[in-house]
Amino acid sequence: MSSWEEKVHKVTPYTPGEQPKSTNVIKLNTNENPYPPAGAVQKAIADFDYESLRKYPDPTAAGLIGALSDTYGVPADQIFVGVGSDDVLAMSFLSFFTSGEKILFPDVTYSFYDVWADEFRIPFETVPLLPDFSIDIDGFCKGDAAGIVIPNPNAPTGLDAGTAALEKIIRSNPQCVVIIDEAYVDFGAESVLPLIEKYDNLLVTQTFSKSRALAGSRIGFAFGSKKLIKYLNDVKYSFNSYTMDAITQKVGVAALSDPEYFKMRCLAIINERERAKKRFTELGFDFPDSKSNFIFVHHPKVAAEDIFAALRENNIFVRHFDGERVHDHLRVTIGTEEQMDALFEFLGKYLEEKA
Amino acid sequence: MSSWEEKVHKVTPYTPGEQPKSTNVIKLNTNENPYPPAGAVQKAIADFDYESLRKYPDPTAAGLIGALSDTYGVPADQIFVGVGSDDVLAMSFLSFFTSGEKILFPDVTYSFYDVWADEFRIPFETVPLLPDFSIDIDGFCKGDAAGIVIPNPNAPTGLDAGTAALEKIIRSNPQCVVIIDEAYVDFGAESVLPLIEKYDNLLVTQTFSKSRALAGSRIGFAFGSKKLIKYLNDVKYSFNSYTMDAITQKVGVAALSDPEYFKMRCLAIINERERAKKRFTELGFDFPDSKSNFIFVHHPKVAAEDIFAALRENNIFVRHFDGERVHDHLRVTIGTEEQMDALFEFLGKYLEEKA
Repeated sequence: MSSWEEKVHKVTPYTPGEQPKSTNVIKLNTNENPYPPAGAVQKAIADFDYESLRKYPDPTAAGLIGALSDTYGVPADQIFVGVGSDDVLAMSFLSFFTSGEKILFPDVTYSFYDVWADEFRIPFETVPLLPDFSIDIDGFCKGDAAGIVIPNPNAPTGLDAGTAALEKIIRSNPQCVVIIDEAYVDFGAESVLPLIEKYDNLLVTQTFSKSRALAGSRIGFAFGSKKLIKYLNDVKYSFNSYTMDAITQKVGVAALSDPEYFKMRCLAIINERERAKKRFTELGFDFPDSKSNFIFVHHPKVAAEDIFAALRENNIFVRHFDGERVHDHLRVTIGTEEQMDALFEFLGKYLEEKA
Repeated sequence: MSSWEEKVHKVTPYTPGEQPKSTNVIKLNTNENPYPPAGAVQKAIADFDYESLRKYPDPTAAGLIGALSDTYGVPADQIFVGVGSDDVLAMSFLSFFTSGEKILFPDVTYSFYDVWADEFRIPFETVPLLPDFSIDIDGFCKGDAAGIVIPNPNAPTGLDAGTAALEKIIRSNPQCVVIIDEAYVDFGAESVLPLIEKYDNLLVTQTFSKSRALAGSRIGFAFGSKKLIKYLNDVKYSFNSYTMDAITQKVGVAALSDPEYFKMRCLAIINERERAKKRFTELGFDFPDSKSNFIFVHHPKVAAEDIFAALRENNIFVRHFDGERVHDHLRVTIGTEEQMDALFEFLGKYLEEKA
């Protein structure tokens, strides 16, 4: 190895879910929304003045922040936006978790947390989920962490810890910033957003990628105290002063302009999820009781990897994770009624043949 | 200060050039292109299928990488793309400059380098420009740095060091990665791109923000050896797996599809710059001989801050930097013929009144 290579910061990258090239597949592997974004998004793109692209975008994304402020009833100076939740979370790790002391997150959770910790040389400890996959609340209440991050609902389990339990964790940790990652909160869980008034160390992150069907646009956001948001913006502006492009800022505003469409689509996904739970149960699967747009299923008689491979061969993509506590499970994103019917039709036949 | 605040990573953010709200201004302060992007960009936006935004974008940006590969004659696996040059450079700092040893860059240069170094806790030393503002080549040839970054042409001086001098620096530093930041290279300087075949530790970064008139879209890119690009992608994927949104990927491809338009606009800016040099000289200004889309001017009789303020009062925005070696200068972006005429008309009168 030549000498410059010795200085390279080597990391093991996160592996995102497969994006199959063929369009002839049922894609239930990356928690995307099966419905298109609001029609207003189409108009925003069509109306966009391409000549304006010669200029830098508004670095403060004031239009989008204003629309978020109106939608969520939170003052503009308590809102932060980034290029997807991942950008918001990475900036938060850099801002709040680099004191050199250890941070905490669950052992089974969003697989990017430990990647960022490694990336930014942040020591961490995982708090194991309880045997039923629920968060070990007391494990997070010791008050000695230098940072805490918990998704609610958790991924890939889909479980909602509930506001009371989360508030207990926040209350027990005034010594550090607590991030509640609410990427999936719009599918039936309760947001802890109101608690930002009470705890100035609470950061609540959300995204347009799932419930607003804009994974392709990369828009994440966070709510917190003025102080927290100021610190976060300082780090963001010292990293890249113009992160969110001009078209995306307009797309985000458009998506927020149609709350009825948003509610209707979330409800459709919730209803389809509940229907899926019944059908998974009928087929002998068990699963934590998801409040998200995916279900983390396990079959007591057939190995998850076998089901995964059989589905894949039939152009149905779901997600399988390695790892001791999760390799017996599959994470299945909720699709349209037609997609889910096709999934269950295949699974019914497949399990019958296996039996 | 409450205890969580003690753990916050506090930084002094970079201050970008002012983006005036009024449209009735002549904006020569952020090195934007005065012309719109290629017409193909308009079509790409109009043709974009908004429904596809529900899905994650291609994390590899294969379409854009392919178009860059065709345009520059560089294999796809030697090209990296990011959300603007700033993103590409920040990822490069994280990938190549975090060994704990000191990196080098000029004392007068792009103001983000020291911000990233602070952000990522990278020790650095600056190599002072020579009195004529040119790069001190020998100062970069000691062979003991853990990283080197030099913009060519340099900002805010606009000076081109020339390929021979840059190659001497690269050849003298096999022990570390050398980044040549070519944000402004398309306005008449020679790119060191061919040298990536010879030096596997050379990274050449460029951007769509200036010469391709797409500052609003946030597209930066880099060329290097396969090894360098692989390391960079590993860090990128461990930071944010989906950075560049789907529309921007199409916009980038469209911008590359019209090389004639690109050449025509670059030439117009170069011609206008040369005309501006004559007029600045006539008005008594001196300046380094710029090869970029800006000129770094100094007037021996009137303070830069006074000229800056007078211009600003008349809705002409240029850039003034604090700092011992630069506060007597103004960085003036090259605008359209009309904008430059207005600038010189005002300056002529203003300096006459002052005399």
